[in-house]
Amino acid sequence: MTTTTAAAREFLDSVTTLLGPSHVKTDEPSRLAYGTDALKRGTAADVVLLPGSTRDVAAIVRLCAEHSVPIVPRGAGTGYTGGAVPTRGGAVVSLERMNRILEIDEANLIAVVEPHVITRDLQDAVEKVGLFYPPDPASLGQSVIGGNVAECAGGPRAFKYGTTKRYVLGLEAVLATGEIIETGGKVVKNVVGYDLTQLLCGSEGTLAIITKVILRLVPKPPVQATLRATFRDVESAVAAVTNVIRARVVPAAIELIDGESLEAVASYLKVRSLAPEGTAALLLLEVDGISQAVEEEAVRVAQACLDAGATEVLRARDEAERQELWRVRRELSTSLKMITPLKFNHDVVVPKGRIPELFALVRRLRDEFGLRIPCFGHAGDGNIHVNIMVDPGDAAELVRAHEAEGALFEGVVALEGSISGEHGIGFSKARFMTLELSADEIALMKRVRAAFDPQGIMNPGKMFP
Amino acid sequence: MTTTTAAAREFLDSVTTLLGPSHVKTDEPSRLAYGTDALKRGTAADVVLLPGSTRDVAAIVRLCAEHSVPIVPRGAGTGYTGGAVPTRGGAVVSLERMNRILEIDEANLIAVVEPHVITRDLQDAVEKVGLFYPPDPASLGQSVIGGNVAECAGGPRAFKYGTTKRYVLGLEAVLATGEIIETGGKVVKNVVGYDLTQLLCGSEGTLAIITKVILRLVPKPPVQATLRATFRDVESAVAAVTNVIRARVVPAAIELIDGESLEAVASYLKVRSLAPEGTAALLLLEVDGISQAVEEEAVRVAQACLDAGATEVLRARDEAERQELWRVRRELSTSLKMITPLKFNHDVVVPKGRIPELFALVRRLRDEFGLRIPCFGHAGDGNIHVNIMVDPGDAAELVRAHEAEGALFEGVVALEGSISGEHGIGFSKARFMTLELSADEIALMKRVRAAFDPQGIMNPGKMFP
Repeated sequence: MTTTTAAAREFLDSVTTLLGPSHVKTDEPSRLAYGTDALKRGTAADVVLLPGSTRDVAAIVRLCAEHSVPIVPRGAGTGYTGGAVPTRGGAVVSLERMNRILEIDEANLIAVVEPHVITRDLQDAVEKVGLFYPPDPASLGQSVIGGNVAECAGGPRAFKYGTTKRYVLGLEAVLATGEIIETGGKVVKNVVGYDLTQLLCGSEGTLAIITKVILRLVPKPPVQATLRATFRDVESAVAAVTNVIRARVVPAAIELIDGESLEAVASYLKVRSLAPEGTAALLLLEVDGISQAVEEEAVRVAQACLDAGATEVLRARDEAERQELWRVRRELSTSLKMITPLKFNHDVVVPKGRIPELFALVRRLRDEFGLRIPCFGHAGDGNIHVNIMVDPGDAAELVRAHEAEGALFEGVVALEGSISGEHGIGFSKARFMTLELSADEIALMKRVRAAFDPQGIMNPGKMFP
Repeated sequence: MTTTTAAAREFLDSVTTLLGPSHVKTDEPSRLAYGTDALKRGTAADVVLLPGSTRDVAAIVRLCAEHSVPIVPRGAGTGYTGGAVPTRGGAVVSLERMNRILEIDEANLIAVVEPHVITRDLQDAVEKVGLFYPPDPASLGQSVIGGNVAECAGGPRAFKYGTTKRYVLGLEAVLATGEIIETGGKVVKNVVGYDLTQLLCGSEGTLAIITKVILRLVPKPPVQATLRATFRDVESAVAAVTNVIRARVVPAAIELIDGESLEAVASYLKVRSLAPEGTAALLLLEVDGISQAVEEEAVRVAQACLDAGATEVLRARDEAERQELWRVRRELSTSLKMITPLKFNHDVVVPKGRIPELFALVRRLRDEFGLRIPCFGHAGDGNIHVNIMVDPGDAAELVRAHEAEGALFEGVVALEGSISGEHGIGFSKARFMTLELSADEIALMKRVRAAFDPQGIMNPGKMFP
């Protein structure tokens, strides 16, 4: 962390005086626990700091700047790309003590929260008063708003409602030089100066530490209708999505699950099959809103699927059936773990009309590299989770998987797509940035980073190749 | 423009060789015409350049950088804050020749356009194929997409649909150092690197020249219902807005017009009155969507207004009646010009629950400074156009108006609001930035600007105090 033991001692003494000994962790288990995320990769923290306030955060940052200690801001550590873990030691600043919902303003449809509020807790709190916070990353039971903002989390409802950034009106954040800034505010329109709020969304902790979030809420849609449609091929499922859009319906969710993923869930649930024989693609569709509209839209959605050649369309008749339809989607991650313990789960995105080309690419990779690659994702957004399954004990498979990964990203960029729609870059995808961005664009982003953090101590080793 | 005549001559020769003599204007009428916007203030351009391509723009920028010539990017020049006019000469780069719609992709709900496509032309083109580009600034018949993006234009439909930035998926832009960059792309989700797309939206031509825009489209809502509700006071009208939101309806527009504005329109149209006697506030509400939903929502909106004490609620029975209800809103700007030829028309914004406090502030300013201050605007967003009317021949009134303007902005910030929701800062509001942003925040924004434009030649004299 610092070059001499004396300097390290001095830094530790200063943060301990600042936070109190119970909020400075240097024991081995803590240093390791805060050194990985869902990737299970990273390096141990030198020290874990638990600030209780924005002032604490600012003081920590100033001490780190003074001692040239790398800072790794951390939410719940549920990310998939290593955004919240050290790459070369330093101080992990966990926001876990800053976990209060400060305000829910029903008249102005606004919530103000500290960064470490669990996403589902916020959703539950606002739904109690008839409001709605739409972003629904799969991790919402564990992940926190600050992390959702830093990574710009998505989820199934992003098709209709947009990703996290669409709901962030303002932020309080601490710069790498210790200043506390406020961006945006409580108004839904603001064109005063540059939009630093949106710049901080998805900046993966490389620009500032987010200490407060002002969120826009919407009225809770009173009614949902959930449908499941099955298809003999991915092309027909994508044609159904196009038909739905042509029918002027904007579903809250349009989730696509491929045949290989369905088999994995069936095997995990120990059932023979979850869909009619020969199903190569399944769509889960949900429409929401006021009841008259939902009724009409559900009819249109079913017709759109049948017109595209659906072999079967089911509609949930009650909440229990709805939960049953969603279950196959929810069990996906756990089920895939039964195939192999390791997966490279990528969240590539293409213009939605090009999803069939993406699946053709994946078929080619399966054959060429001899890999299992189940796919599922948010078809309305063209955002598909491509899971390259790897047996970590099989060195040759690991090499082939890495080759397939590179070929996938190149192919996605050639399809006018992006290598990440939800998970971000972290350290795990940093070397692929050049596939999508030009040298001039990366140089510009680095200059923007330097405008926030001249010393380069905020989450170093992330995002940039 | 440059210090010596020889250097100026050399610059002019170079741009003339590049663009051809017909695309380089140095005649007095052109230099003056491109030197003002809707404000009617600014300084003459030294030269007006009309590039025909992104390459032209990049070459112009390199020449300007080499000769230290300030660059003023310009769309249709319909802005209200002087964003597209020189403050100290230089080259106005008008994008008027880059005016093509390059692509409307129905399957992917995307349009790709050059910057100088008139907003209404794009709307008409996409509506022909059943799609919809929602942003609707009042200037949409003249203003262009590039300018809308640079200023982040709003409009009545922003309440339901959001402002321009919500529709910008990607940009091509030329940096002050001549590099051509692409930000974002054709996908609706992208978390690769910093979100420079959103940073450029609303950056008022101070960071780069926008040369291409990729826009998200939505399905065109097939049906509208338009209602007009009148109230005895602004408080009741705002209570109606809250009731509408409580009734879980998200109208496409909720426009508020105050009594003083209504009188101006009535006088302009030479009618005795446009609303029941004693009307101090009028709401125009429009709901859109599929017909079953619109019917239900129109009923809820009417009830919400009656519950808040509306003296009358009218609903348009056909398109002709709809246009008649909207007419009072459309004639506002012209009507106000009949009161005095000059208005300081500010677009302040407050959390919508605080609109009554904003109107109380305006009443105080009216009394204290003896001014006419008609107000109207987008009540759903809390975005109110406050028009301080001034007789330019009355020097004392002009002084009082400037005082009132300062007091307005201070009051708005105290109400947790923002001094601009739509028009931007330009040069006319630059000195008020410090009311809303701290010195640290402004310093950070200046460092971000320097990351894009180290020499400071891109639209100098704008935004920053």
